[in-house]
Amino acid sequence: MQVTRLFVKGMGSKVVTIQEIASRLGIAVSTVSKGLNGASDISENLRQLVLDTAVEMGYTTKKMRKAEHKKLALFIENMEYDSDNQFGYEIILGFKQASIHDSWDIRVIPINPTMQTEVRYDTYMLKHGFTGAFFAGFALHDEWLKQLQTTNIPTVLLDNYIKKNPNVGYIGTDNYEGIDIAIDLLTKMGHKKIALLNGSEGSLVSEERMDAFLKSMATHGLKPDPRLMAYGYYVAECAQYHVPDFLAAGATAILCGSDLIASGAITECNLRGFHIPRDISIIGFDDLPISAHISPPLTTIRQDRIELGKSAYYTLQSLIKHVSISKTLLRAQLVERQSVSICNPQFSKFIPYSIESDTI
Amino acid sequence: MQVTRLFVKGMGSKVVTIQEIASRLGIAVSTVSKGLNGASDISENLRQLVLDTAVEMGYTTKKMRKAEHKKLALFIENMEYDSDNQFGYEIILGFKQASIHDSWDIRVIPINPTMQTEVRYDTYMLKHGFTGAFFAGFALHDEWLKQLQTTNIPTVLLDNYIKKNPNVGYIGTDNYEGIDIAIDLLTKMGHKKIALLNGSEGSLVSEERMDAFLKSMATHGLKPDPRLMAYGYYVAECAQYHVPDFLAAGATAILCGSDLIASGAITECNLRGFHIPRDISIIGFDDLPISAHISPPLTTIRQDRIELGKSAYYTLQSLIKHVSISKTLLRAQLVERQSVSICNPQFSKFIPYSIESDTI
Repeated sequence: MQVTRLFVKGMGSKVVTIQEIASRLGIAVSTVSKGLNGASDISENLRQLVLDTAVEMGYTTKKMRKAEHKKLALFIENMEYDSDNQFGYEIILGFKQASIHDSWDIRVIPINPTMQTEVRYDTYMLKHGFTGAFFAGFALHDEWLKQLQTTNIPTVLLDNYIKKNPNVGYIGTDNYEGIDIAIDLLTKMGHKKIALLNGSEGSLVSEERMDAFLKSMATHGLKPDPRLMAYGYYVAECAQYHVPDFLAAGATAILCGSDLIASGAITECNLRGFHIPRDISIIGFDDLPISAHISPPLTTIRQDRIELGKSAYYTLQSLIKHVSISKTLLRAQLVERQSVSICNPQFSKFIPYSIESDTI
Repeated sequence: MQVTRLFVKGMGSKVVTIQEIASRLGIAVSTVSKGLNGASDISENLRQLVLDTAVEMGYTTKKMRKAEHKKLALFIENMEYDSDNQFGYEIILGFKQASIHDSWDIRVIPINPTMQTEVRYDTYMLKHGFTGAFFAGFALHDEWLKQLQTTNIPTVLLDNYIKKNPNVGYIGTDNYEGIDIAIDLLTKMGHKKIALLNGSEGSLVSEERMDAFLKSMATHGLKPDPRLMAYGYYVAECAQYHVPDFLAAGATAILCGSDLIASGAITECNLRGFHIPRDISIIGFDDLPISAHISPPLTTIRQDRIELGKSAYYTLQSLIKHVSISKTLLRAQLVERQSVSICNPQFSKFIPYSIESDTI
């Protein structure tokens, strides 16, 4: 009976061997074995690498396969995660890597607003035997998000915060530090007329970044110009509605709420004859895999998605153990590529879109 | 040789047996054994209770005693921790409880400013073979705190934040939520003239609480009165310099930056003929053991010190695994006792100190 169930569970998933892990890492099978079994005569860093690689390749131990009664849910909405260039992929991977020794059965469950109106969150969790959950990509108006104000189920949210419920924790990247690192870099390069093209208004992340921008400009001795601050949307197309105004107001640098917005800002500047980074410096946010491949390669504030996934797991473990963590913030990291240079104000006066026009 | 060393290590510390743990908890020895060994046929909560109690009683396993090469330092300054009614006691206990399965040798090291000028932090850590450290009770001007801006050693700070170093994390209670919970309670009781007697100016915690007070008053539709806001010190005596001014300005409630400050505020009010809580409501911060025993028993915002210790350990583990957690915040909890009541404005006009004076 047990054998049959294991066989059925294994159907369709490739069996990964210790040999394959050893071969991927270029190390001995015995070393992989030590890493998987927590032996003390290999370094902590190597042990972690073995475990992380094993999870990435889909390796499972007998102990892991047996743990059917200990289940965690990983709900995903509005976020792609199937391939390794998508935002959600590494978040899920990091969550699984962090959990490897704890024998959880982790289920990744795509979800939509309709499902959330069909069954209450707590009911769903109890019915399916989940001990806790991690939510990635939910929106403020989602039904389940509202129900989290009173849930008793340990739950961790990416980039969403629930007040005063000790069963719910928030994880995200430190937006204040991220914005401050960007303003640091730009002011060192001589920029003063710095614009912020933010993400959508009303999201926690965008509101924090707006506040962070005002605070960081002040600590750098700069006065924010209302003509250089706007909320957009998390798509490249929003740049066309704001970048022309920024250029008209004399911006020499644009800090964007995502790499996609930054790619749109580069397009808009180029259309108007502004060269990046000679005339205008651009900084993105996230460090999506595409940001290294656009032209010019994008300087950006990195959110480490593996670390987000791992810290989501650690925070969820704390909540399950009744340690009521309210917020876990990760360091933001500057990734310098080629979209920022020293300020050249002579190039930065506004040139109307129609460059063959008589007005210049 | 090994036997000798173990014997020397054991000198002076009482040996705790599994029987004693079972007896303390009133459960079978076999159940304690299951809890210590992670058996799956007892509940997760019971397992955790067994482990927490074992640590509290000083129980060590052979595996724990062997782990001499894996060391963490727990530096304590300006904080009492010897007996269970002192602020540091449960912080250390929580840290040790969280670490029980991970075979660390944890050393509690009291420290002072002089020691910090004698040797650099990184040098000390390497010389003594420590992998990471938790700092509790340090002051902003401490030499080692300055050196944390560039350290490579995984380090967690209680209530102190270091910018932009991914090796250093901050843990603390969410001051914004703590202040907001207090203002929630007071406004529900009809109070509008709410005073804040904060801790010392210049500390991260006090600055956050001041900002939180301004924000929470605004979200509750109240205008903060500059005459009702002051920085004090973290001692009861500071109340005498501010409470008379608050009373003169018509305060009906005083929110204090610590339970000690609150006890001073109660004394000052009583001296002036104000009854707590009939005339003036008082709220403390921390929930120190004394707060239940003062008169009247103090309503306060609890910082759970066991949870602070546990989350310090979890955050340090994350940093050691290169997951760069910048901040971990814990939920603040309201503990309602008897120092808050509904607002009685008729009692709240100022009575000069000398109550036999002609002026009333």
